Amino acid sequence: MLDFNRLCIHHATVQERWTMPQFIDGMVQHGVGSVAVLRDKLADCGVSEGAKRLEDAGLVVTSLCAGGLVTTPDEAEAVRAMDEFRRAIDEAARIKAGSLMFVTGGVDPRDKNLDTTRKRVLERLAAIAPHARSAGLKIALETLHPMRCGARSLISTLATANDFCDALADEDVFGIAIDTYAVWWDPALAAQIKRAGRRIINFHVADWLHDTCDLRLDRGMPGDGLIDLPGIRHMVEDAGYEGYIEIELFSARDWWKRDPDEVVRIVKERYQTAV
Amino acid sequence: MLDFNRLCIHHATVQERWTMPQFIDGMVQHGVGSVAVLRDKLADCGVSEGAKRLEDAGLVVTSLCAGGLVTTPDEAEAVRAMDEFRRAIDEAARIKAGSLMFVTGGVDPRDKNLDTTRKRVLERLAAIAPHARSAGLKIALETLHPMRCGARSLISTLATANDFCDALADEDVFGIAIDTYAVWWDPALAAQIKRAGRRIINFHVADWLHDTCDLRLDRGMPGDGLIDLPGIRHMVEDAGYEGYIEIELFSARDWWKRDPDEVVRIVKERYQTAV
Repeated sequence: MLDFNRLCIHHATVQERWTMPQFIDGMVQHGVGSVAVLRDKLADCGVSEGAKRLEDAGLVVTSLCAGGLVTTPDEAEAVRAMDEFRRAIDEAARIKAGSLMFVTGGVDPRDKNLDTTRKRVLERLAAIAPHARSAGLKIALETLHPMRCGARSLISTLATANDFCDALADEDVFGIAIDTYAVWWDPALAAQIKRAGRRIINFHVADWLHDTCDLRLDRGMPGDGLIDLPGIRHMVEDAGYEGYIEIELFSARDWWKRDPDEVVRIVKERYQTAV
Repeated sequence: MLDFNRLCIHHATVQERWTMPQFIDGMVQHGVGSVAVLRDKLADCGVSEGAKRLEDAGLVVTSLCAGGLVTTPDEAEAVRAMDEFRRAIDEAARIKAGSLMFVTGGVDPRDKNLDTTRKRVLERLAAIAPHARSAGLKIALETLHPMRCGARSLISTLATANDFCDALADEDVFGIAIDTYAVWWDPALAAQIKRAGRRIINFHVADWLHDTCDLRLDRGMPGDGLIDLPGIRHMVEDAGYEGYIEIELFSARDWWKRDPDEVVRIVKERYQTAV
């Protein structure tokens, strides 16, 4: 049976109905000890106020979601994007998050060149490393599903996340976030999880629904879909990961519409029976 | 400039407004010499009638779309699925198609095991090879986008299509179909196209829209999206492919709603300017 103390709930799971203060209160009431925080919800609350409430509640913050978006080929835009990236790092440090989720940004229609863009992202990650190091913050390279390559992230497989870590060689700063929903289909998954090993610093769980109908907001509650979630969890644990298991459901058609207290109760059940 | 004689239009592109007889007449009027045929449209028309009309029109049929769907773990269901697969092969041979598009079928919720399911698919492909060979038909293993792994196909990367061809070792029967929309995001694309080489027997072209909003029916007209289409075409040609370039747009929100004659005119333009 999974240790209940490893359960983390991502604010995304109840984002439609709970502000950050409500989310924090809800987690305390339900006895959940760890959370992942959404950057826009933190902004609504105010960073200082959010940091104080998280600390007063005694919650462990696994991560802040998200920073990055540094694919632009335009130099002036890149300067602004890097400023924003640094602000996200500072906010993550301010709330004592274990990591900042990094998403690259999507393909720029001005160049449509994946190789060039990936090189640009690598350069910008290398440039940000000193700032993250001085903030004492880890940056988690997150693989998004390949269907998000156009609009959101050019790290579409765990292999690329591993390649980036190899190239960056700043193991004290860069780690890897694995999200079952993004990587479950990949025939190279077992090998790449093994390769990632101790780089894995976040483990996100959501299921893939057979009749999924949206490229972003139709994630399934663990157990409702097609992913062998215990199988992937065991791979991640065999690679050395012992950290939190973050339930992250972007679900506009279903879970976001329900009473958040009901959602949290079901997450707690499924955490034990389906993960 | 691309040789106009290599243009093939897939019936999918105008499927909402044109029956198979209308599609055939339209292609003749627009001077398009090659088509890909949809199996349900062929059934509506009647296989013999469709075959006769295609032949009378002098159209080259690149492929019939599609057959397969052989992922079931249930033996009785598998027998029925293989019967249906053989019927698809016979229909493709009847209309003198160059190949039958093969899609594996999706993940079965009864086992949720991708490795086991891929092995099952390989066994069923090996079992079908003699029937395809005696029908004189090639089976094109098509990589679908990873977002279709749950519902439709466990061949989610060109690497898996190549692995399958290696394992099957029936080069006279099995080939590979490459669809830009399905594979463009893949960092291993160039290497896997090179590896595929002469296995490539179909080349499908559609663009990926930045704001794409559906997992199946929102493909973009070449030039409207983020894919470096000429770049991928050159890779495919460098690998030895000299065949038809098939424009295949499943587009419920846009192109399916338009006058099919207008759609075909624009396809012909974009074939020259964006592919």
